[in-house]
Amino acid sequence: MSAQTATAIDPEVKAYVDRRIAELQAQLPDNRVTLVVFSGELDRQLASLVIATGAAAMGMEVSIFYTFWGLSALKKEVHLSGKGLKEKMFALMTPSRLEKLPVSKLNFGGVGRVMLTSMMKDKEITSIGELFAMAREMGVNMIACTMSMDVMGITKDELLDGVELGGVATFLGDASRSRTALFI
Amino acid sequence: MSAQTATAIDPEVKAYVDRRIAELQAQLPDNRVTLVVFSGELDRQLASLVIATGAAAMGMEVSIFYTFWGLSALKKEVHLSGKGLKEKMFALMTPSRLEKLPVSKLNFGGVGRVMLTSMMKDKEITSIGELFAMAREMGVNMIACTMSMDVMGITKDELLDGVELGGVATFLGDASRSRTALFI
Amino acid sequence: MSAQTATAIDPEVKAYVDRRIAELQAQLPDNRVTLVVFSGELDRQLASLVIATGAAAMGMEVSIFYTFWGLSALKKEVHLSGKGLKEKMFALMTPSRLEKLPVSKLNFGGVGRVMLTSMMKDKEITSIGELFAMAREMGVNMIACTMSMDVMGITKDELLDGVELGGVATFLGDASRSRTALFI
Repeated sequence: MSAQTATAIDPEVKAYVDRRIAELQAQLPDNRVTLVVFSGELDRQLASLVIATGAAAMGMEVSIFYTFWGLSALKKEVHLSGKGLKEKMFALMTPSRLEKLPVSKLNFGGVGRVMLTSMMKDKEITSIGELFAMAREMGVNMIACTMSMDVMGITKDELLDGVELGGVATFLGDASRSRTALFI
Repeated sequence: MSAQTATAIDPEVKAYVDRRIAELQAQLPDNRVTLVVFSGELDRQLASLVIATGAAAMGMEVSIFYTFWGLSALKKEVHLSGKGLKEKMFALMTPSRLEKLPVSKLNFGGVGRVMLTSMMKDKEITSIGELFAMAREMGVNMIACTMSMDVMGITKDELLDGVELGGVATFLGDASRSRTALFI
Repeated sequence: MSAQTATAIDPEVKAYVDRRIAELQAQLPDNRVTLVVFSGELDRQLASLVIATGAAAMGMEVSIFYTFWGLSALKKEVHLSGKGLKEKMFALMTPSRLEKLPVSKLNFGGVGRVMLTSMMKDKEITSIGELFAMAREMGVNMIACTMSMDVMGITKDELLDGVELGGVATFLGDASRSRTALFI
């Protein structure tokens, strides 16, 4: 005899309301974060991984699109055979391991990087390599921008295993249904 | 005799539902992307145009707000008459053509720019000038930040024809109804 | 006798519609802007304050998360007692007052900063210190990233009074319910 029972609602009316609500629901952003990591600098890569792992820990879906200098984070090793001269120069000038990335400021011959890494250790803050591995374990999607790979002459087998490839349409698709999208 | 017919719904109920739905619909973001291009560096300008043309190709409305150093992309030519000394220095120190923009990394006396442009050509990737023209043809709104113009002493007739002018309120209005807004 | 009266709608139907609408409403972004200010450069700090004060003037809720080099904006003064050597180096190398921040380009021994500030004055554009004070008066939430404080060895009493502390979860919570979130 509770006034809470909804049994009195005409099923046809309820179906209409539910359909209209579902149409709107489909247009709402998902519980999702999408990052474009354009910069190859240690501090900006670090910031992106802190946000990505934080969002994953909160149960959000996370995608990181690595473009331009940001691609460094996904490179397995420096790989020079079969490249043209300009591509070789690019490969040598862009670091292949996260730990070697320069810091955007204070980069006096690597002093900034060493100091930041060392301070992170003193404070027991996870290193960037550990953060990256943690992000992958937490299911963060790592996507390499195919156009950047083309321009920079990076091939799929130079990238870490399990990395996805995608273009601007993939990014925009993910970003459009995200609550938050950032360009880092 | 189909159960699908909605004719049984009281028109007054239907009108109430539709009105409430429309109120929510008006609060949803449009199929729109808004970019702030703050940086005048070739690689970041390139990234913004790749995103803008990609979004336009997907049928999204796109606005790019050019502020600070980003304004370089909209400048017609260096124009010095009628400027104060400081404004002249700014005008000479900020490039006036997209093709002359420095790259944020590897800018050893212009080597980075030449190398990036040349690699883009090798890969038949559209040049930045072509991308910019393509974006305008596709209907991407190019908006010059009036406050930046004031600070940097850039007048409207130094900007490309057809460029709109706008302030922070214009940007926030567009960004608020966008699915994705990025600061580049 | 107006057809507009909704009295004919069954209260149970109306309650059902209103509940479904309220559920969706709760998932819509608020009229809110969230900024991450990562950079300590004068021009980027200036851009963030222009956006923040603009949004506040338009009646939006605004939060700024200051992380990494961006934290400079919140520092009261250089404070060295009780720090380790590396933290002292960081404290000395990062400016403690907004007016002393370098500009991301044209920073020839401070020339860029002086020139930009002077041009802003010529044009009667508010100085960065005034903009910062105005933002606080307008109710912009200034939040210091606790992880960055840890890494850089900055303590709460080195920050301006009234600054909140927060981590990545605070940022993601605010960003998720914002119409616009930018990484600057």
